[in-house]
Amino acid sequence: MTPLTRRDFTKLSALSLVAGLSPNLHAQSDKKIGYAVIGLGRIADHFLPATGATTNSRITALVSGHRDKAERIAAQYGVPSNSIYNYQNFDEIAKNPAVDAVYVALPNSMHAEYTIRAARAGKHVLCEKPMATSVADCEKMIAACRAANVKLMIAYRCHYEATNLKAIRMIREGALGQVQAIDSSFGFNIAPGEWRLSKTMAGGGPLYDVGIYSLNACRYLIGEEPHNISAYASTIDHDGRFKEVEENVTWSMRFPSGIVASCSTTYGGQMDGYFRVYGSKGWLQVDNAFVYEGLRLRADYQGTQIDEFNPARDPSQFQAETEHFSHCIQTSQQPQSPGEEGLKDLQYITQIYKSAGIPI
Amino acid sequence: MTPLTRRDFTKLSALSLVAGLSPNLHAQSDKKIGYAVIGLGRIADHFLPATGATTNSRITALVSGHRDKAERIAAQYGVPSNSIYNYQNFDEIAKNPAVDAVYVALPNSMHAEYTIRAARAGKHVLCEKPMATSVADCEKMIAACRAANVKLMIAYRCHYEATNLKAIRMIREGALGQVQAIDSSFGFNIAPGEWRLSKTMAGGGPLYDVGIYSLNACRYLIGEEPHNISAYASTIDHDGRFKEVEENVTWSMRFPSGIVASCSTTYGGQMDGYFRVYGSKGWLQVDNAFVYEGLRLRADYQGTQIDEFNPARDPSQFQAETEHFSHCIQTSQQPQSPGEEGLKDLQYITQIYKSAGIPI
Repeated sequence: MTPLTRRDFTKLSALSLVAGLSPNLHAQSDKKIGYAVIGLGRIADHFLPATGATTNSRITALVSGHRDKAERIAAQYGVPSNSIYNYQNFDEIAKNPAVDAVYVALPNSMHAEYTIRAARAGKHVLCEKPMATSVADCEKMIAACRAANVKLMIAYRCHYEATNLKAIRMIREGALGQVQAIDSSFGFNIAPGEWRLSKTMAGGGPLYDVGIYSLNACRYLIGEEPHNISAYASTIDHDGRFKEVEENVTWSMRFPSGIVASCSTTYGGQMDGYFRVYGSKGWLQVDNAFVYEGLRLRADYQGTQIDEFNPARDPSQFQAETEHFSHCIQTSQQPQSPGEEGLKDLQYITQIYKSAGIPI
Repeated sequence: MTPLTRRDFTKLSALSLVAGLSPNLHAQSDKKIGYAVIGLGRIADHFLPATGATTNSRITALVSGHRDKAERIAAQYGVPSNSIYNYQNFDEIAKNPAVDAVYVALPNSMHAEYTIRAARAGKHVLCEKPMATSVADCEKMIAACRAANVKLMIAYRCHYEATNLKAIRMIREGALGQVQAIDSSFGFNIAPGEWRLSKTMAGGGPLYDVGIYSLNACRYLIGEEPHNISAYASTIDHDGRFKEVEENVTWSMRFPSGIVASCSTTYGGQMDGYFRVYGSKGWLQVDNAFVYEGLRLRADYQGTQIDEFNPARDPSQFQAETEHFSHCIQTSQQPQSPGEEGLKDLQYITQIYKSAGIPI
């Protein structure tokens, strides 16, 4: 099997830490990390209650263009009125000592601007995936956070999710023997009018939004970076939704050890996220691998059969990632999914688009 | 959705015929089609009892390099001793009026020679997949059968198998709406010493042997031919089995309508064959899609959920394909999977190898 590198060990150790997260780990700091949530859309609705459920994090500010909505949520989470910001006065957040970090839950195209402005305001940044709409923006975000000496984490939920972590452990511990191939897909039938259908706001189509989960999974499952990527994209568009972004993407990857992977994504049909990993001594499969709940791990290796449904309910994944980031802030550790991880995916997405002939 | 072409209708009509195969269809000829089985290996062990179970076919001769084994099987199937041939005297089969057709169950590299010799002996040919080890051989086989005015069918079991046929019908009838993407894989952990590991005998690795099922499935599921194919192959070979053929292949395809497909195959691990088809109105998945029994169809489309286990047992698939071929001989019809179908797959396999940098 692929020998574990020092980097693998560091990564695994971070993962184990997350997997075994226990309250006493947070005893090192009594002060909960205060978050400003930037953007009060759908994903914030998961982050807000999740953060309330952590032992080490709390909501201390909101940033929104809709004052009414913000007031309502502020009341719910005990956020004082003077800690509600809009996109014009956002930079004043620098003066708010209750805000240690921000959660960037905006459309993709705004991730870079608000990560950089937050860093300049001296706040740590937890930024949703995809990190940005271009490699150049990712690099600017990393540089800004480095210059401001704040932490930057990309909100890759699956890095902190028990079933995904178990699959990683099984693979790294050799349960499947030598991994040979991975299949993974994730997509959905997008509603008309979503900002995700705007190339300017989203950067691209389903690859940016959900295909990125399969791409990222292939990388974290085996701890390797793809050496070769080739792809096709298409837009069938039977109903006029796809004027700006592609509808379907399929791509193949080859990793340094020889492991191959095939992935696909779509905005044109329901494509429940999954991955299958095939090894010399068996296989494992995770269904609903990338959604908020309902994950199921099946495996058959070396005489062992597994069929495990993960009973964890939403928003536990958001809770785990927030706990991790707050813990990293409290203990001055590098997050398991730093900006560099988001940058890599953007580099591969760029390669996929290039291979598929999509201008980026 | 993709409009049905005239060719689709012809194909569907052939498929419906197969699906609805009933004994009275064979009443047109009282004489059962007599088969000579060429090669008494593993796959012949399925074909022999299956043919015995048909209403329109019987075993009338055997061709083998192992006289003892052939005598034993001949006794079992009522084949007279003088209808046992070896590879030297095979051409004498021309003089045997009890033999209407041959079943070529030899290693891939011998398909061309025995198809051509059988055609010259005036016998119809049912040839196992892959049709041959090269496009040139496929073309010679087609030409030889045409010149001899005998029928040539490639033994694509899945074209005659109820669950696969149901998936095809559902897709063509629009149950899934506009198909967007297909995922399919099939592979297994090969035992050392198999002839399949010899490039000379097999033509190539798992793509020739089992990956061809995924390739063929993508084509028959949507009734389109791929316009673009790109691929990667790799040989990790942790135990010395892969000196001649590749271990893993992954490939992406783009079809004229915009449908994309991602496939993989391996000889390095258990990869249960499946396909998932994603459409604008739902999806369907067949597990164990390419094996002799245990097929399971699941689907979720337009408010309908399906979970159907196919109780058919081996060798029913062999029975169905043989019945079809015999019926075509009796009624002078073109088989649903003629030589041209096998040739196409060899052309695509050649493209995949070329894209993956494997000499062919």
